Amino acid sequence: MDLYFLPMACSMATRIALDEAGATATFLEVDPKTKRVLTDGSDFRAINPLGLVPTLRTDDGVVLTENAAILQYVADRFPESGIAANGGLDRSRLQQWLCFIGTELHKGLFNPLLTETAPAEVKAYALHKGLPLLDYLNAQLEGRDYLLDHFSVADAYLVTVLNWTTALPPIDLNKWPAIKRYYELHRARPSVANAIATEYALYKAQIERHKAAA
Amino acid sequence: MDLYFLPMACSMATRIALDEAGATATFLEVDPKTKRVLTDGSDFRAINPLGLVPTLRTDDGVVLTENAAILQYVADRFPESGIAANGGLDRSRLQQWLCFIGTELHKGLFNPLLTETAPAEVKAYALHKGLPLLDYLNAQLEGRDYLLDHFSVADAYLVTVLNWTTALPPIDLNKWPAIKRYYELHRARPSVANAIATEYALYKAQIERHKAAA
Repeated sequence: MDLYFLPMACSMATRIALDEAGATATFLEVDPKTKRVLTDGSDFRAINPLGLVPTLRTDDGVVLTENAAILQYVADRFPESGIAANGGLDRSRLQQWLCFIGTELHKGLFNPLLTETAPAEVKAYALHKGLPLLDYLNAQLEGRDYLLDHFSVADAYLVTVLNWTTALPPIDLNKWPAIKRYYELHRARPSVANAIATEYALYKAQIERHKAAA
Repeated sequence: MDLYFLPMACSMATRIALDEAGATATFLEVDPKTKRVLTDGSDFRAINPLGLVPTLRTDDGVVLTENAAILQYVADRFPESGIAANGGLDRSRLQQWLCFIGTELHKGLFNPLLTETAPAEVKAYALHKGLPLLDYLNAQLEGRDYLLDHFSVADAYLVTVLNWTTALPPIDLNKWPAIKRYYELHRARPSVANAIATEYALYKAQIERHKAAA
């Protein structure tokens, strides 16, 4: 299995899921500016024309895109890991959370804030629409350690997204105590701590590489 | 089963899915301004604090939110309808399309364009980022009638989203012939044609209601 990723991007959720599953995978880093694969300089757009991570190539050579699909694929591929839903309504709840995190938080709120080229008015609009979603999330997380009743790929995705707030002063998690508690709990989980340590080192190297090329 | 909906909104995809399944359901219209349920004046936010449609109450009284989760719930609840994925990789492809339509098209491109209060710069940014996605979609739809190899809830969602282009002059489907062909094919499908006719009448009534209240 090959995972195309960008350091600290939403593809980190799949790294966490693979670690939880004890799965072996080849991690192929993509440069966000050139869209080249670092290991061999090949064009990532030949694999995924949208140039978006995560992109997964299965052991059968099938290319899958889109975070919610890849996370559920990994969860179902390694059922003994326990990171999938338990079926029935639990599966619907997992899909509900993956959809909420993907559309409302990731695409609606965080993506514009993290995009350097997004105009100030776009970032302001994202905050205006998005901050009330954190009130909702905070209420949902009151007294809960997990989005389902156990650690799942939805938690892997949410902690990845919440981790971006460390680089975003306009979103101070101190305002949402239940989210902050949830973030800190999962931030300390070995699979998450390992993923952040690994990818933060790669992220710093990427910045140095871009500086050297400028 | 109760479906909370807004006329012509993304909840129309679930109406199409329910029609395809021959399922009976109670459709509860929500007013977009007051967030009241039309039939009894009750507060929709008591059901879904985000105030977003679709929201589904199952026959067991469980409330589900988020389009991708509700569409997959309906598909799996009525397997004889054939609108679900066939399992295995087909299920991953369904999830991939639901995620792409939900994040990139619906949330990223169409939501800002359809939001009256969104500033012009936000709409311009959505078009700048979103139009290349229609080039990608056009290439994916070349020579294909369905997103999977049969009509599925992903098609119900995509035709619902594409139908919004009829009210959006900046997105002229003539520029993307494969999308236009796909849209016209599915626009003529009885479940889709019925849903549009039913909801367009309700949409016009909603506008008249808002005029009268102003």
